[in-house]
Amino acid sequence: MERVRFGVIGYGQRGYGLLDMLLSMEDVDVTAVCDKYDDRAEGAMNRVVEKRNFKPFCTLNYKELLKRDDVDAVLIATDWEMHVEMAINAMKAKKAVAVEVSGAYCLQDCFDLVSTWETYRVPFMFMENCCYNREEMLVTEMVKRGMLGDIVYCSGSYAHDLRYEVTHGKENRHYRLRNYLNRNCDNYPTHELGPIAKILKINHGNRMVSLVSVASKSAGMEYYVEKNKDTMDKDLIGKKFAQGDVVNTIITCENGETILLRLDTSLPRSYSREFTVRGTKGMYEQSTNSFFFEGDKEYWVPADYAKDNLNNAEKYKDLLPDCWKGITQEQLDAGHGGMDYIEFRDFVDRLKANETMPIDVYDAASWMAVTCLSEESIKNGGAPQQIPDFTKGAYKNR
Amino acid sequence: MERVRFGVIGYGQRGYGLLDMLLSMEDVDVTAVCDKYDDRAEGAMNRVVEKRNFKPFCTLNYKELLKRDDVDAVLIATDWEMHVEMAINAMKAKKAVAVEVSGAYCLQDCFDLVSTWETYRVPFMFMENCCYNREEMLVTEMVKRGMLGDIVYCSGSYAHDLRYEVTHGKENRHYRLRNYLNRNCDNYPTHELGPIAKILKINHGNRMVSLVSVASKSAGMEYYVEKNKDTMDKDLIGKKFAQGDVVNTIITCENGETILLRLDTSLPRSYSREFTVRGTKGMYEQSTNSFFFEGDKEYWVPADYAKDNLNNAEKYKDLLPDCWKGITQEQLDAGHGGMDYIEFRDFVDRLKANETMPIDVYDAASWMAVTCLSEESIKNGGAPQQIPDFTKGAYKNR
Repeated sequence: MERVRFGVIGYGQRGYGLLDMLLSMEDVDVTAVCDKYDDRAEGAMNRVVEKRNFKPFCTLNYKELLKRDDVDAVLIATDWEMHVEMAINAMKAKKAVAVEVSGAYCLQDCFDLVSTWETYRVPFMFMENCCYNREEMLVTEMVKRGMLGDIVYCSGSYAHDLRYEVTHGKENRHYRLRNYLNRNCDNYPTHELGPIAKILKINHGNRMVSLVSVASKSAGMEYYVEKNKDTMDKDLIGKKFAQGDVVNTIITCENGETILLRLDTSLPRSYSREFTVRGTKGMYEQSTNSFFFEGDKEYWVPADYAKDNLNNAEKYKDLLPDCWKGITQEQLDAGHGGMDYIEFRDFVDRLKANETMPIDVYDAASWMAVTCLSEESIKNGGAPQQIPDFTKGAYKNR
Repeated sequence: MERVRFGVIGYGQRGYGLLDMLLSMEDVDVTAVCDKYDDRAEGAMNRVVEKRNFKPFCTLNYKELLKRDDVDAVLIATDWEMHVEMAINAMKAKKAVAVEVSGAYCLQDCFDLVSTWETYRVPFMFMENCCYNREEMLVTEMVKRGMLGDIVYCSGSYAHDLRYEVTHGKENRHYRLRNYLNRNCDNYPTHELGPIAKILKINHGNRMVSLVSVASKSAGMEYYVEKNKDTMDKDLIGKKFAQGDVVNTIITCENGETILLRLDTSLPRSYSREFTVRGTKGMYEQSTNSFFFEGDKEYWVPADYAKDNLNNAEKYKDLLPDCWKGITQEQLDAGHGGMDYIEFRDFVDRLKANETMPIDVYDAASWMAVTCLSEESIKNGGAPQQIPDFTKGAYKNR
C-alpha cells in the first residue's frame, strides 16, 4: 500500500482536529466523511475541499461510508456509544480500523469486539494517544532498561475540568453530557491506563484480574450550572447529575502490581494525568515532573525538588525514541503537543507495511472493560469485580 | 493546674524527640520515664537529669509509672502494639493521656478504648501532629471560610521510604519490622486521615461509613535487604515480607465525600503526605504546594505552575492561625518543622485550662480502625468493610 485512504466518522472537536492532522500527511487521503449532524458532515467535507481541492464522499449514515471501495481505513471519532458498533461493522466490511478511545457500556461489547476481530483479522488499533506522549515513552524506555527496577505500582488520573465543555455544547449535543447526567463510573480510563498497561505488559505475560471502584458525591456540575445559569442552556438548570466528581479505581494485576486510576473532571483544577511509575529502584511522577532514584537526596515538597534539582524528564531526553528526538514544530502543533501526530504516523506506517498494530483489540477490550466494571463496583459499594481475560489464556505467551 | 507533670513511656526515636520537646516547656516537668529496654529507660533518665538537674522515677514496667502520684499526664510513645493497653490502663489510673498515633490491630481495641474513656472521662488526646502542620491548618481555615466551596474529595499519603530505618534498628528492635514481616494493611493511616477527618467534620455531623483497601505486591523490602546484605542483620537476609509496598484505601463518608489514603513506605522516594483537598470552588495540592481556584488560568504540569505562579501556601499566610504566625525558631526546631511543639502546647494548655481535647477518643477509635479494616479488606480481595460508628449516633449532634 502506497497511500492510505481514510473514511473519517464523527466531527466533534476531536474529529476536526484529527481530520486536519490526517490532511497534513502526504501519504494519506481522506476520501469519505460522515457525521449524523449535517452541519458537521458538511463542515468536514468543506475542510477536505479547502485543504486538498478534493470533494470526499459525504454522508449522514456511516454504513454508506463502509460500503465505499475508495476507503482503506476507517477512523471512528464519534460519541462513545457508537464506537463498538461502528468498529464491528467496519471490521465486517473488511476495513482497517482506527477507533478513538472510550470506555465500554457493557462487557458483551468488549467480547463482541474481540470475536469480530478474531473472525476478520483486519488491522485494528485503539487510538490511545497518551501511549505516544513524550514522558510516557521516555519512562517506558527507562523501565525496559531496568532503571526503575521491578515495577510494583503505577497510577494516573484523567484530571481535566470539563464543566464548561460538557454544559456548553451546541444544543446539548456533547456526548459526554448524557453520560454525566445518567451514569456513575470511570467513564474515561484509558489515557492513564494505556501507558501503564504497556509498562506492566498487560495482555503480554501479565493481565488485570480485578478492580474496585468508588465514587465521591456529585456536586461539581450542579454547582457550576447554578453559578453560570445566565449562560447555560435552560434545560440544564436544576438537573441532577449522576456522575461522581472523583472516581478512584484500583486494579490488581496477576503479577501483583496494582494500578490506581482517578477520573476527576467536574471540579475546578488544571489538566494533569499524574502518570506515576514506582519500582524497587526508582520512581517517576508526572505531576511534579520528577524522577527519584535509589540514593538520591531526600526532599520535602516534590514541586520544589523538581524545580531546584532538575532530576526531571529533560535530563534523560537522550533516552527518547527517534520519533520524539526528531519531532518538528508542525508535528508538535498537530495535536496534544505532538503525541497525536506520532500516534497516527505509527498507525499509517504499520498499515502500509502490513505490520502488527501496537494497541490491539485485546488491549481495547480489557482497557474499555474498566468503565463498565467500575460502574458495577460503584453501584455495589466498591465490591471487587473480576476483569475477564479476553485473550482466553493466550496473554501468557504473546 | 499550674504545671503539668508527665510520665513518658517509650524511648525509640520518637520518644526521645518528644522528651526533649517537653523538657523545653517551662510549665512542664517529666517526673517519670519508662521503657522495656533498660538502655533506653536509663538514657531517658539521664536526659532529664542533664536538662533539668532532676532525677525522674525510672522503670521498665509501665504499670509502676501509672501508680505514681507525681504523674498528671502519661505520654505513650511505645511500639504500636502497646498503645491501646497502655492508654486503657492509664485512664483507669485516672491519668490524663496523650497517646502517639498508630493503627489498631482489631476493632475490639477501638471499642475498648472508647468504653474505658466513657467510664473514666479523663482528658484524652490522640497525638496526630499533622493536624497541626502549617499547610494543613491553613487549608482547614480556608475550608472554614468557604474558599474551596463544598468539599467533595480529599486524599493524602504516608509516603516515606522507611527501608533503612525498619531494617537497621538495634537488634531488630524496631517495632515496625515485625509488622512489615507479618501484616499487610495500611499500618499508619492517621497522618493523612487526621487533618482530612477534621475538615470533613468526621464524628461531628459526618462519619466514615465504609472502606475498600488494596495492596500491591511486596517487593521493596526484599530487594533492599538483598542489595544491602553487607550491612544487614543476618536474620533478615532472605526473609519474606508480608507488607505490600503500596496500599491504597478509599473511604466513603456519610455525606458522600470520599477519602483516598496511600501507604507508601518501602520503595525509593522522598517524603510526602500529598495532602489534597478538593471542593466545588477550588483545590489545594500539597505535592505541588499549589492552590487552584475557579477562574484561575489553566496549566499543565502542576510543578511548573507552583514555581511560576506562586499561587501557593505563602500567598495565603495571613490566614494562618496565631500559633503559626508567631512561631519561634526554637519551636520550629523542636520537631517536624514546628507542628510537634504546637500540638503539645495545645495539649498542655487545654489540660491546664480543663478544656475539651481537640482529637478525642472517638477520633482515635475511628481513625485507628482504618488499619484493621484495611487488613481485612486486603485479605478479601478489596471487599468493602463497614466502619463502626463509635459515637453510637452522637456524631450527628456533637
